[in-house]
Amino acid sequence: MASSTPLHLIIKSGGSAAIPEWTALFAEFAPHVVVHDWNTPPADRSLVDFAMVWEPDTGALARFPQLKAIFSSAAGVDHILADRDLPANLPIVRMVTGESQQRMAEFCLMATLMLQKNMPRALAQHRQQQWIEFNPPHVASELRVGILGLGTLGAAAAQMLRAVGYPVQGWSQTRKQIDGVTSYCGQDELAEFLRSSQVLICLLPDTPATRGILNAALFAQLPAGAQLVNAGRGTQLNSADLVAALDSGQLAGALLDVTEPEPLPADSPLWTHPRVILTPHIAASASRRAKARQVALSMAQWQAGQALDNCFDRVRGY
Amino acid sequence: MASSTPLHLIIKSGGSAAIPEWTALFAEFAPHVVVHDWNTPPADRSLVDFAMVWEPDTGALARFPQLKAIFSSAAGVDHILADRDLPANLPIVRMVTGESQQRMAEFCLMATLMLQKNMPRALAQHRQQQWIEFNPPHVASELRVGILGLGTLGAAAAQMLRAVGYPVQGWSQTRKQIDGVTSYCGQDELAEFLRSSQVLICLLPDTPATRGILNAALFAQLPAGAQLVNAGRGTQLNSADLVAALDSGQLAGALLDVTEPEPLPADSPLWTHPRVILTPHIAASASRRAKARQVALSMAQWQAGQALDNCFDRVRGY
Repeated sequence: MASSTPLHLIIKSGGSAAIPEWTALFAEFAPHVVVHDWNTPPADRSLVDFAMVWEPDTGALARFPQLKAIFSSAAGVDHILADRDLPANLPIVRMVTGESQQRMAEFCLMATLMLQKNMPRALAQHRQQQWIEFNPPHVASELRVGILGLGTLGAAAAQMLRAVGYPVQGWSQTRKQIDGVTSYCGQDELAEFLRSSQVLICLLPDTPATRGILNAALFAQLPAGAQLVNAGRGTQLNSADLVAALDSGQLAGALLDVTEPEPLPADSPLWTHPRVILTPHIAASASRRAKARQVALSMAQWQAGQALDNCFDRVRGY
Repeated sequence: MASSTPLHLIIKSGGSAAIPEWTALFAEFAPHVVVHDWNTPPADRSLVDFAMVWEPDTGALARFPQLKAIFSSAAGVDHILADRDLPANLPIVRMVTGESQQRMAEFCLMATLMLQKNMPRALAQHRQQQWIEFNPPHVASELRVGILGLGTLGAAAAQMLRAVGYPVQGWSQTRKQIDGVTSYCGQDELAEFLRSSQVLICLLPDTPATRGILNAALFAQLPAGAQLVNAGRGTQLNSADLVAALDSGQLAGALLDVTEPEPLPADSPLWTHPRVILTPHIAASASRRAKARQVALSMAQWQAGQALDNCFDRVRGY
């Protein structure tokens, strides 16, 4: 990281309360960066070079005329694209950190183990104060895991699941090369991928093509008694179809880390379904330290005139 | 497996209902073995060469005068030693299968991930229909796991936890050599082992020395906020001490697969403690197929005049 020219970064992530922590972290990783609170922007808005945001207010980013790039403060950029007044052609950088990859891989492994060991049943028994022994049917080597979405998060999850002994396959838009992982791609190969995925993990990004993809038609293509993990986006799941598939036995269980909307509304049947485990969007959240380090690296790339890593691609939609 | 001399095996495991399955499995793995139902023994009891049992009635094994060895039908032999009329010096073979090692390793990994990700909190929120995001503090490489008991099950668990990136240490009666796993042994090194175990997994066998070992004095030696997994025996845990340690914050959470007694009584505070997850003794149960294969191997060892693997040692007590 060369230059000591000051760079101005405005932050909307964790509210004003988080600004002292962000300031301290950037002082450590990029001392030439001046941190501004989204809630108290500088009088001269043209000072601001970069913005790191989560769910920016519509039209707000357009009011910084010298913005060079926008950093999403977590996985996914749908919350930024929702701004109809977003300046066109401004680079949007997805938050990809080694830490979020590690956390997502751990989460997917935990979720797979919990479904393999029939934890929905164990937890339902616990709630009812029943002690009934049962024999989880599979060991890891007998349970094929299919990952929908083999990007940086999916690849990390695939490798960790492989390390524990699961047979792993993935599906993505383009063919991937990951040791020991069968790669399916494109619409033509989706059915074949689904047919042998006993645990299906959705890690897809939110795009028009993925909304509602986890529906009755897809569930019907999985082997009977398959299980579902959704750690992608809540918009991808048709909840009514999930409940129907669980009730018919086509699906045996589900673990959902994301819902639509979040928080999950009080009247959702997912809250009380005995075969569903809910976690409140905890899968891949990276620490502020890891995020600040990553954003500092991106700003250094920009200063060095390099292409920014992990840029959102408006054509492919993620 | 040479000889076709018939061998007679009497079975008390899964009740009379399981006998057809056992008969079919031994027909596959050891066709010269004649399977008898514990509930309908042969008129001539001296025919019986071997017994595979779970919780045999007191005095019952002594009534088979030609018994060569007793096979426990699951991990642990305490349920056999409880028989005060047990014939002295008869080999007792612990049930050790590759499958039970694999399952125990998977279970310990699942339990560790669940505690790392603060699943007690997520599940309590789910029960209360609350959606509150939180950030699990550690990644695997930051959380040191200590395994109490580094026998065949403990070693398998240690290796799987290592593969995912946890720092792992173990404590046992004798020093062990496991790649990447720090081995502590004996009473002298117990305190040092406990001091750095952020997740403590108990896989000890049931012996007079291990009963009640998971108590206030031990919990106080763990780092503040440590978490506990008990997949050993329920007798090893002082439940009142666990509840006190959870309520004081010395322990942050616990996952218990075994209790004393089982089923856990309705008035136990463990059923409703918000930081406790209960599973009904599902950790390491092997399939009947894996058990039959293992018992067939042991009988073949006996026929070949070899020492039997996995024999209970009356001196060391496991």
